[in-house]
Amino acid sequence: MGPRGRFDAGDEALTVLCAVRYNEPMEPRINFVTLVVADLERSRRFYIDGLGWTAAMEAGGEVAMIHVGNKLVLSLWAESAARAEIGEVTRGGTMPFTLAHNVSSPAEVDAVLTTARDAGATVHAAQPREWGGYSGYFSDPDGFRWEVAFNPFPIGDVTLP
Amino acid sequence: MGPRGRFDAGDEALTVLCAVRYNEPMEPRINFVTLVVADLERSRRFYIDGLGWTAAMEAGGEVAMIHVGNKLVLSLWAESAARAEIGEVTRGGTMPFTLAHNVSSPAEVDAVLTTARDAGATVHAAQPREWGGYSGYFSDPDGFRWEVAFNPFPIGDVTLP
Repeated sequence: MGPRGRFDAGDEALTVLCAVRYNEPMEPRINFVTLVVADLERSRRFYIDGLGWTAAMEAGGEVAMIHVGNKLVLSLWAESAARAEIGEVTRGGTMPFTLAHNVSSPAEVDAVLTTARDAGATVHAAQPREWGGYSGYFSDPDGFRWEVAFNPFPIGDVTLP
Repeated sequence: MGPRGRFDAGDEALTVLCAVRYNEPMEPRINFVTLVVADLERSRRFYIDGLGWTAAMEAGGEVAMIHVGNKLVLSLWAESAARAEIGEVTRGGTMPFTLAHNVSSPAEVDAVLTTARDAGATVHAAQPREWGGYSGYFSDPDGFRWEVAFNPFPIGDVTLP
């Protein structure tokens, strides 16, 4: 504010400077994790029939959406439908990302991995980790890797789950 | 319960049947999204310096973790560290998964994409989508695709964001 309690030229210059310096901020927030799946029916059998999760929304054999957190949706998107929007995708090998599901004890890690194996997943058995926790992995029918983890330590000030 | 209000042999048989049928359930929950990044410093520059997000935890040049939801963590994991746990990863092409960040208006979609572009991302401009919303994408330094979306419709009974 200028000396008389209203904007003057100096204030205006400052305002312009700020507008240049700051864009609309992007909040740190993920609302969807979308897995592009080769065969949506196969993925439905694994996540919905196998793990017992519930589809909140399904559309035309192209997508199935599952609530997996507070305002967080897991979307299974048929590759045939995804292609028009994101192009051909790369398959094969180990993808450079994982999802994790945290639980409250090592015993629960083993139990969830058993559930996943019975649903048809490939399981990499859990083991103690050098960071002090215990975790293993399962791979879904497309090879998407889920870590099932017990972590006794908080991340920042948040304890999981 | 049996006819006299306590368990009898018939109840026990039913209990065993249930134990066989149901494993420990796996709750539909994602706690971590981990991106295996080729160069952690480059990723820090994008997410932390560029987008202005805050690292809740960092460890030894191997990992940086950012809160991106309620009990949801985005983990940037240096490929050199990840290799010991998940093996060599496949790079190149378009990965078969995306993350999404939902906002409250089309104008906000464009604004966030501008922020991402200024932070160094490659942007695929937003457009109206046949499902009734408006969205575009940006790719981070490793090619991980984020959709920035305005969706006027709820997913099941949840409106995003």
